[in-house]
Amino acid sequence: MADKIKGTLIIIGGHEDKTDGREILTEVARSVRFERGPLVVVTAATHKPDELAEEYTAIFKDLGVKQVAVLDIRERKDAHNPEHVELIAGAATVFFTGGDQLRITSQIGDSPMFRCLHEVYRKGATIVGTSAGAAAMPETMVVGGPSDESHRISALRMAPGLGLLGDVVIDSHFAERGRMGRLLGAVAQNPKNLGLGIDEDTAVEVVGGERFRVLGSGAVYVVDGAEIMYSSLSEQHAEGIVTVHDVKLHVLGADDHFNLVQRRPLRPDEPENNGKK
Amino acid sequence: MADKIKGTLIIIGGHEDKTDGREILTEVARSVRFERGPLVVVTAATHKPDELAEEYTAIFKDLGVKQVAVLDIRERKDAHNPEHVELIAGAATVFFTGGDQLRITSQIGDSPMFRCLHEVYRKGATIVGTSAGAAAMPETMVVGGPSDESHRISALRMAPGLGLLGDVVIDSHFAERGRMGRLLGAVAQNPKNLGLGIDEDTAVEVVGGERFRVLGSGAVYVVDGAEIMYSSLSEQHAEGIVTVHDVKLHVLGADDHFNLVQRRPLRPDEPENNGKK
Repeated sequence: MADKIKGTLIIIGGHEDKTDGREILTEVARSVRFERGPLVVVTAATHKPDELAEEYTAIFKDLGVKQVAVLDIRERKDAHNPEHVELIAGAATVFFTGGDQLRITSQIGDSPMFRCLHEVYRKGATIVGTSAGAAAMPETMVVGGPSDESHRISALRMAPGLGLLGDVVIDSHFAERGRMGRLLGAVAQNPKNLGLGIDEDTAVEVVGGERFRVLGSGAVYVVDGAEIMYSSLSEQHAEGIVTVHDVKLHVLGADDHFNLVQRRPLRPDEPENNGKK
Repeated sequence: MADKIKGTLIIIGGHEDKTDGREILTEVARSVRFERGPLVVVTAATHKPDELAEEYTAIFKDLGVKQVAVLDIRERKDAHNPEHVELIAGAATVFFTGGDQLRITSQIGDSPMFRCLHEVYRKGATIVGTSAGAAAMPETMVVGGPSDESHRISALRMAPGLGLLGDVVIDSHFAERGRMGRLLGAVAQNPKNLGLGIDEDTAVEVVGGERFRVLGSGAVYVVDGAEIMYSSLSEQHAEGIVTVHDVKLHVLGADDHFNLVQRRPLRPDEPENNGKK
């Protein structure tokens, strides 16, 4: 990293509460409070852009956000449109809805909008993604693979992501869709990446690209492959189970903190962890 | 342990293949081959004893087992019946079907049949359990808790099991039903117990109570809590997510070996691991 990152990421495991306490979306709304620009809802991932735009606009207005704008990206040239780039350039918060993460990256990857997104993030904007919008955040994203099944080499599909967060892979709907197998597979492919499995109605709020805290009602699973001394990934045929020894796993709940640089969870009694109840 | 255990356990994660390769049931059938006694199918766990008895009898006969007997335990006095005890006493292999693990333990726990089961196991018999029959094997068994959800303290229900294998807890249908959350919860409750999560059509074959190898098409997850230095289990209210740091996890596939005494997976190149292909 050349410059210190001043922005924040809010990475949501999907199905965030939209009707009751709305803890996570309230935190998203709060990110706009002291900023001048709008909250921009980007519907690039979804096949139902109008429906999601309407739903999120109503929620964020209800949560007190004064300016909510919608950026409806349906093809690659939409990410080159100077008006769209300008909208991102002035945004306090950019919110990526769910849908298909490949729709996000294939449409905005390396576009003027993409470069602008990185710039506003470095300068202090908050970038939010839920479900597919969450999966798309890292350098490399998981795009497919079976749920509720143990990992077979051939089954996992990955692709280059938005690159807003390095050295992690992210999977959403984590416990709900039984995705431990595929996250373990993704980490075993290259243990330099920390695996983050985020449950529904649960989020990590990453500050300055260096640490996060957990929000919401579910758990965040951190899969650390640094101590893997043996995996069968390079040996076995495509349909075999991938053997992996000595994976480290942390399970975190609301208000827990994690240091991404040191790859360590913080105990609630550690001084740095001042947010823990 | 007073005496060295001479018996074998075959612990199956449920839904073992009954029609095609039948790898696991073939291994069960093989356990009878050089023994004099019958293979006894115990239907204590199920509400459909006749159906399962018929199905397994047909399969094991088809796999070349000459003597297949059925022990239909429907109430506690059935486990006191001297004829039933005698059947177990002469068995080469005892096979517990799926169903409800509490039906097994509540009906046979501390009965003459139960004591006889332990005795024949110590002397060399093979004891097999699938699904509920697998969960019932350890000293403490998981009897309930949500699947496809992260663990909340209040959600997990455990009960005393058959006690054929110490210092482990076992969960079946593991990846298929997304049970990592509850197995982590069970291990965090007391890290002395190693957690074994066994996928469907997958089994561990435990020799002498000390080591196992994996059979079948899925994975076995070994959750080791020995290095947990922090968990929130004693602090949090019942509905909260249980925070756990530094769980060790191994994922094992067919022909992988694990030493239960040392709590270590064996690498395929370790000399002790002669069964690995």
